[in-house]
Amino acid sequence: MTKPAVRVALLGCGTVGAEVVRLLHDQAEDLTARIGAPLEIVGIAVRRIGRDRGDLPVDPSIFTTDALGLIKRDDVDVVIEVVGGIEPARTWLVEALRAGKSVVTANKALLAEDGGALHDAAAEGGADLYYEAAVAGAIPLLRPLRESLHGDRINRVTGIVNGTTNFILSSMDSSGAGFAEALEEATALGYAEADPTADVEGFDAGAKAAILASLAFHTRVTAADVYREGITEVTAADVASARDMGSTIKLLCIAARTVDADGAESVSVRVHPAMIPRSHPLASVGDAYNAVFVEAEAAGQLMFYGRGAGGTPTASAVLGDVVAVSRNRLAGTWAPSESAYAKLAIRPMGDAITRYHVSLDVADRAGVLSQVAGVFAKHDVSIATVRQAGHGDEASLVIVTHTARDAALAATVDELRHLDIVRSIASVLRVEGDD
Amino acid sequence: MTKPAVRVALLGCGTVGAEVVRLLHDQAEDLTARIGAPLEIVGIAVRRIGRDRGDLPVDPSIFTTDALGLIKRDDVDVVIEVVGGIEPARTWLVEALRAGKSVVTANKALLAEDGGALHDAAAEGGADLYYEAAVAGAIPLLRPLRESLHGDRINRVTGIVNGTTNFILSSMDSSGAGFAEALEEATALGYAEADPTADVEGFDAGAKAAILASLAFHTRVTAADVYREGITEVTAADVASARDMGSTIKLLCIAARTVDADGAESVSVRVHPAMIPRSHPLASVGDAYNAVFVEAEAAGQLMFYGRGAGGTPTASAVLGDVVAVSRNRLAGTWAPSESAYAKLAIRPMGDAITRYHVSLDVADRAGVLSQVAGVFAKHDVSIATVRQAGHGDEASLVIVTHTARDAALAATVDELRHLDIVRSIASVLRVEGDD
Repeated sequence: MTKPAVRVALLGCGTVGAEVVRLLHDQAEDLTARIGAPLEIVGIAVRRIGRDRGDLPVDPSIFTTDALGLIKRDDVDVVIEVVGGIEPARTWLVEALRAGKSVVTANKALLAEDGGALHDAAAEGGADLYYEAAVAGAIPLLRPLRESLHGDRINRVTGIVNGTTNFILSSMDSSGAGFAEALEEATALGYAEADPTADVEGFDAGAKAAILASLAFHTRVTAADVYREGITEVTAADVASARDMGSTIKLLCIAARTVDADGAESVSVRVHPAMIPRSHPLASVGDAYNAVFVEAEAAGQLMFYGRGAGGTPTASAVLGDVVAVSRNRLAGTWAPSESAYAKLAIRPMGDAITRYHVSLDVADRAGVLSQVAGVFAKHDVSIATVRQAGHGDEASLVIVTHTARDAALAATVDELRHLDIVRSIASVLRVEGDD
Repeated sequence: MTKPAVRVALLGCGTVGAEVVRLLHDQAEDLTARIGAPLEIVGIAVRRIGRDRGDLPVDPSIFTTDALGLIKRDDVDVVIEVVGGIEPARTWLVEALRAGKSVVTANKALLAEDGGALHDAAAEGGADLYYEAAVAGAIPLLRPLRESLHGDRINRVTGIVNGTTNFILSSMDSSGAGFAEALEEATALGYAEADPTADVEGFDAGAKAAILASLAFHTRVTAADVYREGITEVTAADVASARDMGSTIKLLCIAARTVDADGAESVSVRVHPAMIPRSHPLASVGDAYNAVFVEAEAAGQLMFYGRGAGGTPTASAVLGDVVAVSRNRLAGTWAPSESAYAKLAIRPMGDAITRYHVSLDVADRAGVLSQVAGVFAKHDVSIATVRQAGHGDEASLVIVTHTARDAALAATVDELRHLDIVRSIASVLRVEGDD
């Protein structure tokens, strides 16, 4: 006995959407066996019907420009959204979820901006909301965070979640090139878009950080809660400085749980470039790969690695979700919606606990180190290592601190900048991965 | 309104079992929020009630030696099995599943030997069978294979799934020690058991390979289907030889899909030591860590990394499963059982496609290379690289082949062994990770 088909509406038919259509067709037999019923695309909403989409294996008559009309059709069970952006995607998905239709989306911007609206609609309609493709592309990461690690307690998530910036930083590290040159190469190779702002300024990573933090800490975290610093200011000198320390620079998204002296818990979520030791599992993640390092109380250290972007990997993640929600529908159930019971406070960046690496050019005379060290002490920042090298009447000091409040570290650097004996500050970088 | 508790029976209270009890107690509040109902341990079956188990946070009166009686109690919803071994575990779990009770087990030996019996019982009773802890401890790996990658097609799984052997090989690699010395160190540090046979002979990795292959290829694979070679024959010379090639030696479990010229698919599943290039993501997996590298058609390359053993990591994986099955119970559903629809044929080892690295001591005279190369050609094995180094009247040849049937490679080495001009074969190792 074959069960009736699970009927799918696809919103958007760009690179990822077209790949979803192809995979649904090419793997129809497998998917049917895995779900227990066939999948059928009953409609595809696009902005312009006539556009050339290559040779897609679907009846051209199912294309429509009326997305909302498609979503409302009685014969739609599952809605796949690969359009992106906040509106009209939010209106569409809220409509679908309230009507009890399962939603699979790759829309990280919407989830990070207003995931709550979607989760509320899913709870209201009794429907599934799955979004594995929204973070780290094909890497099965959200499902483990949502489900497998539910018996555990996550303390920290550190990720490389933007392929473009990882490509640029990897290339600066291997070739010694500056940011502009490496960006040019990334653009030429198709790793960076014509307008690379969302990637190089950390907006994309920031959205993903919000989604990861929400899942890891059972707390609603939005993009606005995430401290964000891009990689445009990273110089060849910074990269060389990191290399001298046996480290490399990565754009990290970090979501960390902090427990105060009085036992109160809070979360800090941030995206910024940081030095990590080359021995750290994240250091060897090269090219446009993504990886997410999770530290959990019982499970210990875990890492998930794979391709973070691209039509096929993203479509693979979408399809994995489609199988899950289809099975749920056939079983007459849906996964528990958002888990936001912990409601932890979000710490501002100034309260985040970080470490700094500061490289200074100073006058080479007696008492300089003592004066510089005094500034750190004044701000209650403890120094881990100092290296001093004299050349002519100048000397360079490379200082790595122990952990401290980020605001104290920033204030220290600010004061150093105004010190007479400090000729220039060559490099300031946060340090992650050990202490 | 609080829902009634999900009632748990625990079979076994050794290292992992005791840690499960502790975590269930310490994280009771979190678990209740995540499940939507509290968890309650109603009974713990052990061999001897009086044994000192430290200070466990449970009423001592719930211990029993009658496991079967405990499983059959009406007030048991979920059965956790951390006893291990084939019998009586199989009888217990089949009984539980047939009665519709959800089972969470870490029993890799049983799953690899007769997983079919458990899956059949689960289907019969309409119950969940979860076993994340059976492979790669705390790493959420089986759930992604079972669920997230369901929209994809896996072509190959390559894993380091035994912590003891990885510790030994990592230590041989870093110190140059021989196997016996490295094993002694592992035993002293608690990484190897008093009788290390199951680990060093590859039985443990073989069981895990069977479980991974079953999930990846939707085919029932048992431990008996897995070709198995341990690490006891790996010498310091082999490790040095690998190092010369920019490689390292790992005990790998490999499950690969092969498509014949006529389109027929089959699977080869094997465990043996192999050389992999140091640039491969698996090469940097050190100490007792585990990692599994997955190659899928759409998702591309993925890697999962983390702690493979230990009471707390294993208990964490068990608890993740307990949360999942408890939620399913509250929703009145259960996950789809085994997916074995593909029923691929298992290729014998002789038909597996592998590469060899062979290091020979030969007489240093004209025509030797030609004679040696002739033996490879006779068996249709194509040579990728040869390095020759003369010393005195002897020379050494290091030959790396292209891929070929394992039987042809083995026959080639066998014939080389009997060649007059071959003084000795210093090292024969399979090569993985590139071609």
